[in-house]
Formats: sequence, structure tokens, C-alpha cells
Amino acid sequence: MRIEVVRKVLARNQQAAADNRRRFDELGVCCVNLLGGPGCGKTTLLEAVLPRLSPLRVAVVEGDLETTRDAERIAALGVPAVQVLTEGGCHLTAAAVAEALARLELAAVDLVIIENVGNPICPANYDLGEHARVAVLSVAEGDDKPAKYPLLFRGAGLVVLTKCDLLPHVSFDVTRVEAAVRRIAPDARLARVSALEGQGLDGVEAFLRCQLCAAPGAGRALPS
Amino acid sequence: MRIEVVRKVLARNQQAAADNRRRFDELGVCCVNLLGGPGCGKTTLLEAVLPRLSPLRVAVVEGDLETTRDAERIAALGVPAVQVLTEGGCHLTAAAVAEALARLELAAVDLVIIENVGNPICPANYDLGEHARVAVLSVAEGDDKPAKYPLLFRGAGLVVLTKCDLLPHVSFDVTRVEAAVRRIAPDARLARVSALEGQGLDGVEAFLRCQLCAAPGAGRALPS
Repeated sequence: MRIEVVRKVLARNQQAAADNRRRFDELGVCCVNLLGGPGCGKTTLLEAVLPRLSPLRVAVVEGDLETTRDAERIAALGVPAVQVLTEGGCHLTAAAVAEALARLELAAVDLVIIENVGNPICPANYDLGEHARVAVLSVAEGDDKPAKYPLLFRGAGLVVLTKCDLLPHVSFDVTRVEAAVRRIAPDARLARVSALEGQGLDGVEAFLRCQLCAAPGAGRALPS
Repeated sequence: MRIEVVRKVLARNQQAAADNRRRFDELGVCCVNLLGGPGCGKTTLLEAVLPRLSPLRVAVVEGDLETTRDAERIAALGVPAVQVLTEGGCHLTAAAVAEALARLELAAVDLVIIENVGNPICPANYDLGEHARVAVLSVAEGDDKPAKYPLLFRGAGLVVLTKCDLLPHVSFDVTRVEAAVRRIAPDARLARVSALEGQGLDGVEAFLRCQLCAAPGAGRALPS
């Protein structure tokens, strides 16, 4: 019976995700789902890349179990941010995202970035209606992670290796990780980033801008 | 209906956990559940502390979604290790642990350490029959994590801050984190560890030895 219920939960999520995606497409909004483990640097990556996206109009949906800290960090940049608290839930659902979207002036937005709950496992199973996924792995987490958490990387259009400034201090074989990622997600772009030092952000910025052009509803005039 | 099923799943797990705990107690075995996010350094911590526990007889149950890498690392130390692959599951269950225990010569073991799946959320909800929990947080993950993942720390008898050799290179306020942990888990012991540099392991070793003395079934003669 449990399997049946899980199937129903996923089917209901899939329906809500399709509704979100249709809404995005009707409004010409692109949506990117940002996934990764706890403390892998998702919010810091956003803090580094969001100022580079101007004059695009970006909004952020933040998922966390507790605290509104991440949404506050994004709002401090002048970017509209909505915090979703999952009340113990280990992932965002499409329905929770739909509620968050209702609190945004979506017609005045070009790109919605959803920062998922810090968890390398469960969020990957839930389509939120996004057009693309970005998977984040900190070099401090170790280079065995693509093999251990393949689902995190499988659907990603971009895989970002964060905290590369720590590479001299940790055991992390970048070449090995990138080869492992390529086996799991052959078409994913790769970026080596140090948000602290402002390195490697060009690739992330370019990926986000590209998604925007490729989004199905992006026929509408974009700010250039 | 979903809530009802979740409740049944948790109740069934609780029953299996009680069975595990009874088995441990009958045999005078102590069991510790090691929890933390992906790449926080759980296996590396074990590699550093296990050789210090001799002549205690330790066995390790490793939980992962994929790969038997962690069990191989432990077995390389000459410590019996059983790998549980969760096939996509984001946490270990007491039933999966029971199956793993059947593959160990439990009567010849003093201490079972269960290294849970790398995930700061779901594993904390599942009692495995352990006598104590150890929560692991890497300083590379950031000092906002106790506030974000309180459940990880709430039930912990020991909280280990790992990768302290990275402190000069990351933004991590140890005092702030330790104060936050004390608010969540006032009785937890704290340890600041660098497994790489062999620092801070005394506290971890002492905690594990103490649990052994305190375990209900530990009346049996222990190797001294």
C-alpha cells in the first residue's frame, strides 16, 4: 500500500508541476531548480551570480525546513524572494512552489530560481515545473559524491563545483569528478566556481541566460 | 491517507527498532547511529577513530544509496563492515539494519556503529534501535546549519564539528555553532575534530567508550 501511496503522491506532484510549467510558459517566465546538499553553497552562489543578471528580472523561491535566513540574504540584494518552510519536509513540492509563486508578481519576472532544500537525495525526485536543473557540489564534500548520489546529477543541465578556493586544502580530484558527472549527465555543462573569489561565475551566468532564451514561452520581448 | 500511511511506516519502524535494541541488549552490544549531511566526513571520522578503540570489538553498518565504497574503506582497517544499499531510499530503516545485523557475528561484537545515509534530514526521523546518536557537521557546511536542521542535533549525545583544519579558510563561527547546538541539545557533548590532522579525536573516542559502559546490556565482561 505504501508504494501505491508514494505513486499517488508523485503523480499529484507531477500534475502540480505541469500546472506550474504551463503558468511559466504562458507568462514567458523561465524557471531553474537549484539542488544540492546542505551547506554546498547554493545561496552564496546566488548571491554571487544574481547581481550579474541585471537587467533581467529575477525572483527566487527559497526552500528550507526552518529559518527565513536564505530569503533574507537574497532580499538584501534587492531581488524578490519568497521563503517556503517545509515544516520538516525534506524536499519542495510543486504545490508548495505554486503557493510561493502566488506571492510573486510573476508577470513582471523573467527568471524564477528555486533554491531547493539542502539535501542531495529527495528533492531530485520532485519535478517542480522547472525548465532546467542546476546541481551544486562543494569540493569540501569529497569527490565520491557523483557515484553516491547519481540522481542529483542525472537531470542537471549545469553542474557547479563550488568552494574551489578550498581545493588546495581538501582531497578532491576535479578531473575525476567531472569525468564521473559526464558519465551520469553527458550533456551537462560544468562550472568550477569560487564565489568567495568571484571565479568561474561566467559559466553560471551564461547558462542561466541561455535557459531564458530556450524557455518555451520566451518569445516575449526580453530586456536586452 | 498519506499521513496515516506515514504514521504506519513509522510505527512499523519503531517496532523493528525496539527489536534491534532488545537484541543488542541481550548480547551486551552497544549501538551508535552516526548522522550527518553528504560529505561531512562521517567515514573519515570512523577511519580516524576506529583504530583507537582497540581492543574493543567494533562492527560497522554502512548506509548508502549507491556504491560499497564506504564499507570497503572500513573493511580495509580490519573492522567488519556491512554495506546496506537503500536503492534510492534517503535513510536507513530499522528493518534494513536488522538484515545487516544478521550478516554480522553480533555475539563477538562490543560496539556497532551505523553510518547513516548522507542526509541531514530524513535519517533523524528513523530510530534504528541505537543507544546513542552522533551528529556530524563539517565546518565547510556553514554555521547556520543547527538552526536549519535542528532535528539532526536534537537527539544527539555527541555533536562533532569536522574538517576543523579548514577553519582558517571558511566563514564558520565555532562559538556561534556550539551555542546554537547547546540550545537544541543542552546535554550533547561537543568535539572539534580534524581527522586529517588527528586533532580532537580524544573526545570522540571517550564518548564511544562511555556509551559502551552505559549500554543496558553492558554487564557482560568487556575487554579492558
